[in-house]
Amino acid sequence: MSAAFKNAGHQIVQVYSRDIQHAQLLAYHVKAEAVDKLSRVNAETDIFIIAVKDDAIPVVAQQLAVYNKLIVHTAGNTSLAALKQYAAASGVFYPLQTFSKVKEIDFSTVPLCIEGASPEIELTLTELAGTISNRVYKINAEQRRQLHLAAVFACNFPNYLYYIAQQILDKQKIGFDILKPLIKETADKVQNYLPAQVQTGPAIRNDENTMEEHLDLLSNEPALMQIYTLLSQGIIKMDKRSNGAR
Amino acid sequence: MSAAFKNAGHQIVQVYSRDIQHAQLLAYHVKAEAVDKLSRVNAETDIFIIAVKDDAIPVVAQQLAVYNKLIVHTAGNTSLAALKQYAAASGVFYPLQTFSKVKEIDFSTVPLCIEGASPEIELTLTELAGTISNRVYKINAEQRRQLHLAAVFACNFPNYLYYIAQQILDKQKIGFDILKPLIKETADKVQNYLPAQVQTGPAIRNDENTMEEHLDLLSNEPALMQIYTLLSQGIIKMDKRSNGAR
Repeated sequence: MSAAFKNAGHQIVQVYSRDIQHAQLLAYHVKAEAVDKLSRVNAETDIFIIAVKDDAIPVVAQQLAVYNKLIVHTAGNTSLAALKQYAAASGVFYPLQTFSKVKEIDFSTVPLCIEGASPEIELTLTELAGTISNRVYKINAEQRRQLHLAAVFACNFPNYLYYIAQQILDKQKIGFDILKPLIKETADKVQNYLPAQVQTGPAIRNDENTMEEHLDLLSNEPALMQIYTLLSQGIIKMDKRSNGAR
Repeated sequence: MSAAFKNAGHQIVQVYSRDIQHAQLLAYHVKAEAVDKLSRVNAETDIFIIAVKDDAIPVVAQQLAVYNKLIVHTAGNTSLAALKQYAAASGVFYPLQTFSKVKEIDFSTVPLCIEGASPEIELTLTELAGTISNRVYKINAEQRRQLHLAAVFACNFPNYLYYIAQQILDKQKIGFDILKPLIKETADKVQNYLPAQVQTGPAIRNDENTMEEHLDLLSNEPALMQIYTLLSQGIIKMDKRSNGAR
């Protein structure tokens, strides 16, 4: 996100981390100063962006409060209240995306979820968000919590299912490559159709023979059998809104 | 697949369906003759491709046996034996992809899994497959069954999880669009990294507070609570092979 801000013409004044090497690594990329003490923070800045573990957010906010500036956090599952009690002005700037150190991201397509302690702050943050992304959403506290939960179902859990699939193939000495077009197509489809319209597989056809055979193949893996059964039961009960293929 | 064959310069002689309108619809696109009786099948053809429900495969194969031609089926979960007992020459031609009537597919990237009753048939099918796809795999019966199972985990189940995520957003009056970049990025990541390298979310961080809050949000949905718990337990136990981000 700091690279996206930099590229959009903003100045990253400082990067703070308890670990100065972490701060330096990021600061170097965005031509900022690295600091490892919050007392060294430059007061001549417009906004503090806190991107730390959820439970560290109030701790950092409390120490930044003395500077009397706009403070935002970037967490999906933390309320604005974690900042409000300390900050003169506060907000949330939540990027709804999965970030890994191994892979860069085109920030212009990352949905940014904005909440502000006042309408003025909300406007400021919306404008700021618009400089780095073309998908800016005003999302309130309850919506953001639910959105974070939905993201677990839409991202973290599917990735784990890819992992299970890979484990199954490993045992057959089949490379994971063979599944990649299928994984990609499955995600591509829901870019233009609702999931219910494009659900395929034995469960949506209620193909009991195939499901039983699959459970047989998993008979040494009770946890996977449970996952298979639960998800298949869910699919069988799915609200089919269209005559998509099966 | 018939369109891909046609585009590759093959001739689709006939398209059979019990429902002549179904046969006509497909036949029209590939300039073939539509038939609704297997007794009307043109004997002057090189290969019969059976793409019907699993349990109908032997029924159709038995009726095609009189023509003494190469017969293949396209099913992931049906063995070659279903054809062998009837056909003079038989094989499997299994495209590992999710097909919906609503969306066309670039067949050249679809993995084709080939099995033949003899090495000669396997060679013929491999060459044929190579004319429509650049991803051709020799896959034996046991491998194909496991592959079909893996595909359920890699495609059908993730699509159902997208559906759950959409249901959660619906209740908050948030459009499904906001999740699309996340879904796409999650599938894109595993094109170049193993799922274990790019797993993110509360479970892989063992963030118990967040997981408890998520279960609270699901308290009226016992089936979803079970799914959340099972998949999170699986992620917590995941074999982390790399230091991917969390």
